[in-house]
Amino acid sequence: MAIDNAARFDADLLRQRVDERLAEAGASAESRQAAVKAMLHASLVGVDSHGVRLVAHYCRMLGGGRLNKNPQLTVEKRGAGSATVHGDDGLGHYAAYKAVEVGMELAREAGVGAVGVKHSSHLGAAGAYALAGAEEGFVTFATTNTDSVVALFDGAQKFHGTNPLAFAAPVPGQRPWLLDMATSSIPLNRVMLHRSLDKALPEGVAATSAGEPTTDPHEAEMLLPLGGVDYGYKGAALAGVATLFSALLNGTTLDADFLPMYGGDDISTPRNMGHFVLVIDPDKFAGRALFGAAMAQYLASLRGSAVREGGTVMAPGDREWAEMDARRARGIPVDPDTVRFLGL
Amino acid sequence: MAIDNAARFDADLLRQRVDERLAEAGASAESRQAAVKAMLHASLVGVDSHGVRLVAHYCRMLGGGRLNKNPQLTVEKRGAGSATVHGDDGLGHYAAYKAVEVGMELAREAGVGAVGVKHSSHLGAAGAYALAGAEEGFVTFATTNTDSVVALFDGAQKFHGTNPLAFAAPVPGQRPWLLDMATSSIPLNRVMLHRSLDKALPEGVAATSAGEPTTDPHEAEMLLPLGGVDYGYKGAALAGVATLFSALLNGTTLDADFLPMYGGDDISTPRNMGHFVLVIDPDKFAGRALFGAAMAQYLASLRGSAVREGGTVMAPGDREWAEMDARRARGIPVDPDTVRFLGL
Repeated sequence: MAIDNAARFDADLLRQRVDERLAEAGASAESRQAAVKAMLHASLVGVDSHGVRLVAHYCRMLGGGRLNKNPQLTVEKRGAGSATVHGDDGLGHYAAYKAVEVGMELAREAGVGAVGVKHSSHLGAAGAYALAGAEEGFVTFATTNTDSVVALFDGAQKFHGTNPLAFAAPVPGQRPWLLDMATSSIPLNRVMLHRSLDKALPEGVAATSAGEPTTDPHEAEMLLPLGGVDYGYKGAALAGVATLFSALLNGTTLDADFLPMYGGDDISTPRNMGHFVLVIDPDKFAGRALFGAAMAQYLASLRGSAVREGGTVMAPGDREWAEMDARRARGIPVDPDTVRFLGL
Repeated sequence: MAIDNAARFDADLLRQRVDERLAEAGASAESRQAAVKAMLHASLVGVDSHGVRLVAHYCRMLGGGRLNKNPQLTVEKRGAGSATVHGDDGLGHYAAYKAVEVGMELAREAGVGAVGVKHSSHLGAAGAYALAGAEEGFVTFATTNTDSVVALFDGAQKFHGTNPLAFAAPVPGQRPWLLDMATSSIPLNRVMLHRSLDKALPEGVAATSAGEPTTDPHEAEMLLPLGGVDYGYKGAALAGVATLFSALLNGTTLDADFLPMYGGDDISTPRNMGHFVLVIDPDKFAGRALFGAAMAQYLASLRGSAVREGGTVMAPGDREWAEMDARRARGIPVDPDTVRFLGL
């Protein structure tokens, strides 16, 4: 969610200040580099909830001991196309980018790389990792499970996290096709925003503590899965897919069992978060040239298709790339707390 | 969608009659075996639109030449974890089950098998193939693209198919976790049903020819993607994921470019449909035992979670397995046209 009416800052300045704060908190150069890259990605494409505003939180967790300041990543290769990255309880961005690297290395030979990540932590926006693979020419999928906040279909308790599914694919001469979607309709901070504005929520996106759908942001206690009141079983199942690949396959923490990311007393125990990355080499399928031509044809057809009155048809990523261009030109909006934390 | 008030028949009798009709139409033993298995799967779990009612259609296409009666499948292995199955324009079920077999063979060694399918045709319910992998102990994903019938978000033309995403995973001592979802909210035949009953559609599932959302089934010209009027960009992007893996990666036909499955004049030209199957061996990740225990714990937690008044919480597949039990006991409902075609 974008922050309106906030002070704006140059990406390079933010990159430098975020890196300085993480360095002061003791994070190693390698883990800082990854975290800064992922946070700036999110801040540039407009996902401010996962952008630079998280730096204060990460610094606090580095200080508390939940996050290992100097993680030593290990990679266990179990087959020609599969591996597990042990994140050593450091910043999740470091382990997740490593998983993409390992996945690409596997995919170059095996055609596909499936990489689990365990003993990791919050990775920011999952799209950053799908994008990292696509920028090197690979079709890439990245997912993670997260703290429980979304009800099951017909459920009356927080069960899954907003569990993102992120996909990206290279497009010749264009920025990648990029999908980074939560499996809930809205993020939790949208509820907070509506609460502070005393503004009704859309239908079918949030529920009371009894699981009853509500548009009253003050009554909303949990999110509803994508698909809403009628088709939310699909969104709930997709959240389950994220949990299956990220947690069940890696033997890491289930959504409901996480120590809370925010607000808990314990900031010294690692959360053992899992992620999953899948990397596919188009050269082992139709071939990079044919695949690229097909992507370009598909996107031209999509962008040129008929639009309903007042609407706009966009490919996944188009909105994000436009936002990135706008923010590169006008600066990245930063909330006042983070402005203070960064000494801007 | 289930057929109510229809005559019911024993699964074994249907299996035999469907096989006989396909044999009369000239389909080879291998392709018949696959098609019958997939059709019975769909009919048993309640997905009647993809079940035995399709036999007359397949027979017509075998007669017309669109479908090759005696396809010779070829498998091109391009890496330790990747392969492409050439379906030789036969019944899609045959090529798709073959892709799962190849995927499992690859996954046993490489940890993962990513298998593209080209020169295939309609494969019925994608869940049949995810299930085939899960029944052998593998986490399996299957997808296909299909004929355009779903608008883009804010679009005013049919763009993607109802493009299914199917996932399945083994659970020790239980039937698999099984998700087989269209990336639209409803299937097209739901619109037909509401039209025949003159009954309003739910909100946000269908649109007029101008792309305007409508609940009038007589005005509805296309489906809307999962997520509806507010969040349909997510469903549209997920449909794109199916197209990306199935068509773009394999160099096969795009959704809008298919010769129509039904109703076209040309029933002699193959449609070159693509599919994609991903198979993962849990033994190359947390290990089969740990993964199984985690699945069981996750599902127990899910099934035991708090429910909203009047609701029921189910895991993906629970509804389908209950339907299978009911249909095994009471028979499979079959529409009158198919009853006649099968000579029942």
